[in-house]
Amino acid sequence: MTPAGPGRGRVPRGPDRMVPMEPLDRQVGFLLEADRLKTVLRQTTLTDRSRQENSAEHSWHLALMALVLAGHAPPGTDLARVVAMVVLHDLVEIDAGDLFVYAAQAEQARQERAERAAADRLFALLPPAQAGSLRALWEEFEERATAEAKFARALDRLQPMLINMVTEGGTWAAHGVTADQVLTRVALIEDGSPSLGAYARDMIASAVDRGILAPPGPGKRG
Amino acid sequence: MTPAGPGRGRVPRGPDRMVPMEPLDRQVGFLLEADRLKTVLRQTTLTDRSRQENSAEHSWHLALMALVLAGHAPPGTDLARVVAMVVLHDLVEIDAGDLFVYAAQAEQARQERAERAAADRLFALLPPAQAGSLRALWEEFEERATAEAKFARALDRLQPMLINMVTEGGTWAAHGVTADQVLTRVALIEDGSPSLGAYARDMIASAVDRGILAPPGPGKRG
Repeated sequence: MTPAGPGRGRVPRGPDRMVPMEPLDRQVGFLLEADRLKTVLRQTTLTDRSRQENSAEHSWHLALMALVLAGHAPPGTDLARVVAMVVLHDLVEIDAGDLFVYAAQAEQARQERAERAAADRLFALLPPAQAGSLRALWEEFEERATAEAKFARALDRLQPMLINMVTEGGTWAAHGVTADQVLTRVALIEDGSPSLGAYARDMIASAVDRGILAPPGPGKRG
Repeated sequence: MTPAGPGRGRVPRGPDRMVPMEPLDRQVGFLLEADRLKTVLRQTTLTDRSRQENSAEHSWHLALMALVLAGHAPPGTDLARVVAMVVLHDLVEIDAGDLFVYAAQAEQARQERAERAAADRLFALLPPAQAGSLRALWEEFEERATAEAKFARALDRLQPMLINMVTEGGTWAAHGVTADQVLTRVALIEDGSPSLGAYARDMIASAVDRGILAPPGPGKRG
C-alpha cells in the first residue's frame, strides 16, 4: 500500500511493471503496512481496564521503558539498538497475531514459524539493504544473545507484569496463572537486568500476598 | 500509581511519609502513568478506518518512521535523540489532550499553556536528574531549533498526511481542509528534511488531482 502519486511528474521509465519502485516509495509502503500493528490485540489491558492493549502501543510503552530504565541495563549496552529492537519486535504479529506468553509449547512452535514467514514478507517491502539491517535487528531480538537483546526482552516481559499489578492481577487472574509460572519468566528478566529481575521477584511476592496471583503450586494456597 | 509492594521486605526507614521513594519505584510510577497516553485520541484514523488513532500508537509509528527514514535526516543527525524525542513528545497530552493541527490560534495558545503544566506534573514523577534530562528532550522537540528536533517534527507532520493519502483524504476531507492550508505545513517538513518535504509536496499535488484534497484557495476549483 503506497499513497498513489508521490512519483507524479517523474519521467515515465517504461511500462509500469518494469519500473522499479523508488526507495522512498517502498519505505512509505512499509510504514503504511506497519500501521496494521495498531489492530493486533494482546491479552493485557490498559491500566484503566477500558480495553485490551494493542501491539503498536505496547511497543511504544517498551520504547519509553527503555529510555526511563536505561540505568538498569548492563554497562556498555547500546540503548539506541535496544529502542530500535523494541520498536520493531512485534511487527511480525501483523500476519502472525499475538500469542499469550503462557500458551502451550505446540502453539509456541506454530507461532514461531508464522512469525518467520511474516518477517520474510514484511521486511521485503523495504529497499533490500535496509530490509537486511532491520531484519537483522529483529533476529537479534529473537535470538536473545546480545546484551541489547537481553535487555529488550526483559522489558517485554516486565511490562505486562507492571500492568497486572495495577489491574487486580490482570491476565494472571483472567487465565488462572500461578506464581510459579510467572517465576519461570523472571529468569529472562534477570538475564537482561539483575536489578529489574529482583524488582520483578519482589512484585510477584507482593502479588501473592495481596491475593491477585495464585501462590506457587496446586493446593499450596492458604 | 505504583504497583504496591516492590519495596516489600526492605527495612522500614521511619513513618511512610518520611520515606523517600526509591528511584525505581518513581520510574515505574511514571511508566504506569504514561499508560494513559493510549487513551488520548487523535483526529487521524487508522489506515483501515476502523477507529481513531491514539497518541501512544502514533508515537510508536513516528519512532518506526525515524528508523526507516533515517537516510532522509541531514548528515550528522543523532538518530537516537530523534527516536527518544518522538517517543516522549506527546506525553503531555495525558493532561492536555490532543489538538487538531488546523485548530484556531487562540486554541493553540491555550493548548501550549496546558502542555507546559502537564510537563511540570508528569516529568516530576521521575527521579529529579532524569526528570531534567527527559524534560529537556521534550523542550528541544517543542523549540525545533536543532537538526534532531526539526527532523522529529517533520515526521510528526508527515505521518498524518501519509494516512490521509490512503483513507480518501482522511482528516482533510472530514474537516474541509484545503491544499493551501496543508502546504503551509510542508515548510516545517522541508525544514527537517528537504527530500521528505519534496515528497510531501508531490503527495499534496497528487491528492488535489485525485479530488481527495480541495485545491488551493476558494473558487479556484475546476
